[in-house]
Parts: sequence; structure tokens; C-alpha cells
Amino acid sequence: MKRPEELDIVLVGAGNLATNLGKALHQAGCRISQVYSRTEESARTLAETLKTAYTTSLPALKNDADIYIVSLKDSALAERLTEIVSGREQSLFVHTAGSIPLNIWEGRADHYGVFYPMQTFSKQREVLFREIPFFLEANQKKDLDLLKRLAGIISGNVYEATSEQRSYLHLSAVFACNFTNHMYALCEKLLKEHNLPFEVMLPLIDETARKVHQLSPAQAQTGPAIRYDSNIIDKQLELLSCNPQMRELYEIISKSIHNL
Amino acid sequence: MKRPEELDIVLVGAGNLATNLGKALHQAGCRISQVYSRTEESARTLAETLKTAYTTSLPALKNDADIYIVSLKDSALAERLTEIVSGREQSLFVHTAGSIPLNIWEGRADHYGVFYPMQTFSKQREVLFREIPFFLEANQKKDLDLLKRLAGIISGNVYEATSEQRSYLHLSAVFACNFTNHMYALCEKLLKEHNLPFEVMLPLIDETARKVHQLSPAQAQTGPAIRYDSNIIDKQLELLSCNPQMRELYEIISKSIHNL
Repeated sequence: MKRPEELDIVLVGAGNLATNLGKALHQAGCRISQVYSRTEESARTLAETLKTAYTTSLPALKNDADIYIVSLKDSALAERLTEIVSGREQSLFVHTAGSIPLNIWEGRADHYGVFYPMQTFSKQREVLFREIPFFLEANQKKDLDLLKRLAGIISGNVYEATSEQRSYLHLSAVFACNFTNHMYALCEKLLKEHNLPFEVMLPLIDETARKVHQLSPAQAQTGPAIRYDSNIIDKQLELLSCNPQMRELYEIISKSIHNL
Repeated sequence: MKRPEELDIVLVGAGNLATNLGKALHQAGCRISQVYSRTEESARTLAETLKTAYTTSLPALKNDADIYIVSLKDSALAERLTEIVSGREQSLFVHTAGSIPLNIWEGRADHYGVFYPMQTFSKQREVLFREIPFFLEANQKKDLDLLKRLAGIISGNVYEATSEQRSYLHLSAVFACNFTNHMYALCEKLLKEHNLPFEVMLPLIDETARKVHQLSPAQAQTGPAIRYDSNIIDKQLELLSCNPQMRELYEIISKSIHNL
């Protein structure tokens, strides 16, 4: 059985997740032998970082890699599955999306799985993989073992999860990350409208995140909505009268806080 | 002119903010000579921590303190202003609320101000005051100077702000903290419903917060809503079909992300 560092890995995709995952595997001593992206520039940029070859054509993918890590947009993945697998049916194929079930590969490949690192990735920013939870799934036990060993060389938090569990993890992550970041974005918009710098919010943002390491979010909740202080709530709705969409959000989130 | 450590400080209130602020001032060497709370237990607990006296009666407040830091619920503050000031008109009165204008004191006290530490406070948790931004306001220049020196011994981020600016800072803080924490709480609720531990979300929560130190929230946004990936959005709405309120929130926040 090959060690993870001996595997021949092909990266199909060069977006935020593929870029970060590729770098982490490369730094851990893994061998990425080819990168694919539809966009030449993305493919070349990532291939240069990983000191490897690239292609912009799926038929030009190598045929003999041990594992194809497919990190395309969900819609693109569905469309290109056949092209990705075709001629490489003996290899192991994994996708990296929280929202896509394992069985998308069924009837196409013999060996397939899911390799989902639950984190928010941007190309401009390097993240610490050691703490990122990986959720794995595979149709064959020995492939699951291989995925565990591969994830284990970059992360200390490797779990198995069914497709159903993963769909709820991904949905929860949308709340914890994407929606949270949108709260920051609305905050930034408000401050900008009143010539105040976003930076003053950083200690509050940090403490809000740190706090839920110690208290449950329900215990950690503060502010006018939890007490349903209608004095403050009405005043703040008034301050948002020029922002009807933010006003609506303010109202509905405050109610939700109070109800929870 | 007295040094901050020489001031005779009375703390009116023993809630989350008063408790944390009192501890920080005490640890910095300030002299809190009395604590008031309507609730005997809160008053006694905080007084013991600060090694000082307490009362549960406003008329029994000392008359000769240099500064009264008033940290009551907004509604309680409005109701008890007269009782707090009466007989102590020569002293300096400050409140600590983001949402209450300076002029609430007008016509009652001669010296008054605002001493607003923008942070989320819970009694169970100690926070680092050094990084907390303080926003100050006073009706007299020399009182503003005194507040600056007092805030300066516990925090490195001391600013002046008008009542109008402060109202927008407080509103922005509601988005950055209270609403953000609610996103964590909804995430926790979802995970609990599916027997998944909230702890797996902590690396994602931390990275989401750290990310906006480097990228603006608008640049940092990831996830299905920013791409308006209706495939994933529809699937996730489906997963929320048993939670009509979360479903509504999911829909409206996703639209807001896409619009911004």
C-alpha cells in the first residue's frame, strides 16, 4: 500500500478550495502531478505554485493517476463527470463539496469518495490546515482508509460522515461562515455610510468568535434583541430607515433571536 | 488634577458590562468605593470581587464621589436618572450605553458624559480591555479629558465620538456581534438536531473572524449565495423545510448577500 506521499495526485479545478488544498498537500510532501482548470491563467498560476504540469482540456488529463481530486463548481462537476472519469475508470475519484452526495459518482467510476475540508477559502489567504475538520466518505473501505491517511498528513481533525450528515454540516457552515461574514459586510456598509472605520469592530468580532469556545452561542447572546428591548430596537429600526433591506433583516433576525 | 487612580468611583449597576468594567478598573489600580444594584445578590457579588461596599438603595449612594459610572438597562436608566443625580449635582455622571445620547443628562447634572466600551460582555467571561475601543463624550472639556485618562489606563483604543456616531457604532455592533452570534446559535441548533457537535464549527468560525483582519468582508464572502448557486440554495432550503423561520432567514440573507 502506497504512503500518501507516494500517491500520484491530479487536481481537477484551480479555484479557492483547490488552490488552498493543493498548496497544503504540496507543502506536506505530496506529489500533485497535474492541475486542470478551464481557465488557462488559473491552471498556470496554480501549476507554477505546485511546480507541476497543467492542462485546460479534460481529455488531456493523465490516465494513470492514483487519485483525482475534483474541486469544480457544483454545476460544472455534474456536467463534466463523464469526461473526467472516461478512460480512467480504475482510478479513485473524490469531490470536495459539502453539498454533493457520494452517489453522484455511482455507475461512472468504480472507486469514488468525498474529501471535504470544512473551511472558507480565498486565494489571497493561507489557512492553517492542521485544525480544519475533514469529512470523508468512500464507496470502498480501502479507499476510505487511503483518504484518511491522505487527510491525516495535513489535518489533525479527520472524520467519517455520511452524505446526509455532510449536507447538514455544509448548511450549518453556511450559517456559521457565509451568513456571519455577511453580518460583517452589513456592518462595514453602515460604518462606511457614516465615515467610521471598519477596523474598530475587529476586537468585538474577535471576542464574539472566541466567546463560543467557552460558552454555547445561546449562553453567549447579548444585545437588545435577547432582552427584546423595544426602546432600542425601535430606535435602531429608525436609523435604518434609508436601508429598507437592512431594516427588514434587522427586524427578522431580532425576532429570531428573541424566539430562540 | 487627580490621577485616574486617585478618583473616587461609584459603580451604579452590576450587570455584564458593569461587572467587567469594574474588574478592569479595579485591576488597573482604580478605587471603586461603592457598588449599587437593585438586586442584593448582584450588588454583593460584585462588591466582594472589587473589595468594596454596596447598596441596593439609590438614596443610599454616597454623595461625594468624583464620578458615577451608570450602567443600568436603558429603560431603568431613564426612569432613575433623577434619583441618581439628586443631592450629587456637583459630581460627574457618565453612562456606558451605546444607544443613549449624551443629552439624557441635560438639565439634571452639571457634569456629564458617556463612557462606552464597545464589546460583548458576559459575567462568566473575562475580556482583554487593552484592545476594546472606548467612545467618549462629555459636556465639558475638562471632564472629557478626565474620561480620556480614565479609559486610557485600561484601554489602548480611546476615541471621542458624538452621540450620533455612537448610535451608528452601536447599531453596527449589533450586526457584528449580536446577529453574528445568532448565526452561530442557529448553526448550533441545526447541528444538535442532527446529532453533530458544535465544536467542529470552531475552526471555521475563527477563520471567518480572522479573515476580515486581512480582507474586507465584501472580498471575504464565499459560499452559495455570493455565486447565487440556485442548485445548492434550493437543496439547502429543502433541508430547512421543518424550520420555517430558519428557512425564511436563509432565503432573505442569501438574497441580501447576492444584492450586496
